[in-house]
Amino acid sequence: MFSVNRPVRVAFYGVGVISASIARALLEKRGVKIVAAVDIAEEKVGRDLGDMLGLPYKLALIVEKDAGKAFSKAKPDIVIHATSSSLKQVYPQITQCIKAGTNVVSTCEELVYPYQKNRAIARRLSKLAEKNEVSVLGTGINPGFLMDTLPITATGPCLKIRRMKVTRMMNSGRRRIPYQKKVGTGLTENEFREKIGKKEITGHVGLDSSISMIADSLGWRLDDIVEMPPEPTLSDDTVKTDYTTIMKGCVAGLRSVAYGIVHGEKVIELEFVSHVRVEEEYDYIEIDGKPNVRLKIEGGIHGDIGTTAMIINSIPKVINAPPGLHTMNQLPIPSATPVELNKYVKT
Amino acid sequence: MFSVNRPVRVAFYGVGVISASIARALLEKRGVKIVAAVDIAEEKVGRDLGDMLGLPYKLALIVEKDAGKAFSKAKPDIVIHATSSSLKQVYPQITQCIKAGTNVVSTCEELVYPYQKNRAIARRLSKLAEKNEVSVLGTGINPGFLMDTLPITATGPCLKIRRMKVTRMMNSGRRRIPYQKKVGTGLTENEFREKIGKKEITGHVGLDSSISMIADSLGWRLDDIVEMPPEPTLSDDTVKTDYTTIMKGCVAGLRSVAYGIVHGEKVIELEFVSHVRVEEEYDYIEIDGKPNVRLKIEGGIHGDIGTTAMIINSIPKVINAPPGLHTMNQLPIPSATPVELNKYVKT
Repeated sequence: MFSVNRPVRVAFYGVGVISASIARALLEKRGVKIVAAVDIAEEKVGRDLGDMLGLPYKLALIVEKDAGKAFSKAKPDIVIHATSSSLKQVYPQITQCIKAGTNVVSTCEELVYPYQKNRAIARRLSKLAEKNEVSVLGTGINPGFLMDTLPITATGPCLKIRRMKVTRMMNSGRRRIPYQKKVGTGLTENEFREKIGKKEITGHVGLDSSISMIADSLGWRLDDIVEMPPEPTLSDDTVKTDYTTIMKGCVAGLRSVAYGIVHGEKVIELEFVSHVRVEEEYDYIEIDGKPNVRLKIEGGIHGDIGTTAMIINSIPKVINAPPGLHTMNQLPIPSATPVELNKYVKT
Repeated sequence: MFSVNRPVRVAFYGVGVISASIARALLEKRGVKIVAAVDIAEEKVGRDLGDMLGLPYKLALIVEKDAGKAFSKAKPDIVIHATSSSLKQVYPQITQCIKAGTNVVSTCEELVYPYQKNRAIARRLSKLAEKNEVSVLGTGINPGFLMDTLPITATGPCLKIRRMKVTRMMNSGRRRIPYQKKVGTGLTENEFREKIGKKEITGHVGLDSSISMIADSLGWRLDDIVEMPPEPTLSDDTVKTDYTTIMKGCVAGLRSVAYGIVHGEKVIELEFVSHVRVEEEYDYIEIDGKPNVRLKIEGGIHGDIGTTAMIINSIPKVINAPPGLHTMNQLPIPSATPVELNKYVKT
């Protein structure tokens, strides 16, 4: 596709918190050049990308509004797409990228494994990508790694799998303020339930994608995927975070669970716990099979850093992949990218 | 290559302990048929495979001597090759398989990542496989998973890697008798060191392959790979195992370490500990980077079961791969095979 002797040309679609984190990490790499940035928000368009990313210097790149035009002109090798969790919402945006002839790696949770809930869109994207000879991938830390790619990999040394449970324990008080707000920190229980009803609090997005990806890899035909509404975790004491003060009995965070079901049995169980009272952060994979596997990531993986890294580390893999829509369980194993980002990009 | 509607045709090259374990596990799957078996040992040739595998029934398959002839006639989709750890020794055998037009998955430790120590052979095998349009892979639990594929995967959510250490703690007293013998169980320290000198005890084979694979994935150019001779672990008490009685002060097992070195610094460190005094079995991956990752498999993974599973689970991936010599870090992520082995095999 291009020579490893020139920098990889990267563009951004969506200039928000995650894009800023990705851009800052990219600027510490060699063999990479940011060539365009697009956002739909009027207040961002026309501003310098360096300013928008909170850098202390300008990048001499103006945030543009028209993605098709920007990418057709800048000819990026890959667009880093980070706008929304909803595949229906991002579908026209991904389409613009593909039609401009560029590969795409996206943080869109519903794109990580779209063949269950959004099969029709997935097929259209796949065909369009093949026709335009580009590759598209949705990834991130979760969905994308902790509750799907890693647990699937952990079944590699197993002869049989009976069931699998994955737990993620996070202390939300150690995360950025918008995240604390997202999990309902400090609300009363009634306020929390109201916001659940209005879908202002959604819990963790993508548990169903992770379940579908696991089932696909193991060859399991699920009868059902059940996502329970997030349950508030109430604080047993008054707790201060950098975001707010949680009164005793108010919401410290939440717990989301989802199941993959065969013959009434929960063969896949994903549990996502995020509140300020979590003492030990970890990710835990329990595989009941032959043999059993018990895998623990002590201390867990920081969500924002993890997603930033998963996106960047996917760049060579997406560019090198055959044309089409890809999922993490079909690509080569994840790995940290060398400092020279263009090192493992094929010509 | 063939239709998913017929069984996958599997043949064996080498009818020993590991092949027996693989065959028994395969016989519990559907969509798979054992079509040939070959061994170079005169005493095995001409015997029924069922007898040779220790099954309570015959398999109506005679162990043959001439691999080229046997595989050309039986037309397996894939040969499970399990004869020796030495790539130089197995090279002619793998060549026979390739020339007979069959894919190969091998337990040969030195084939897992042959591009460092056996580069010339690796290139010849790769070219020959491409020419004959078949795929070849070396894999197993270690090398193949615990000290390379899994640690590499664990770097996926990292922006930077400074160093990595992987430790495998095994209680050899819980393993089969030939294994206990292999790690010097019950010897005096002098006997152990003599056997090391004569290469009758080699320690764990393949640490260098794992180090090379990690370095390749991370884009690290190592100055050196150093494998230390195995050190005996002496028992502080008299211990009985099902193999022997270890007198106080005699050998309880061994410890092997190997390093990948850049500018005099041990950036990769693999530590393999296997003796009867190990109380907690585990595998532990320590990645120092951004972020740090601490990943533990509690209780470890049983070596023989793990290798059996890694070989079987690689069958669809090897058959579906493009022609050539493959390594675990270039193939799609590992995963347990469905009960129907032919389920994920492409036409």
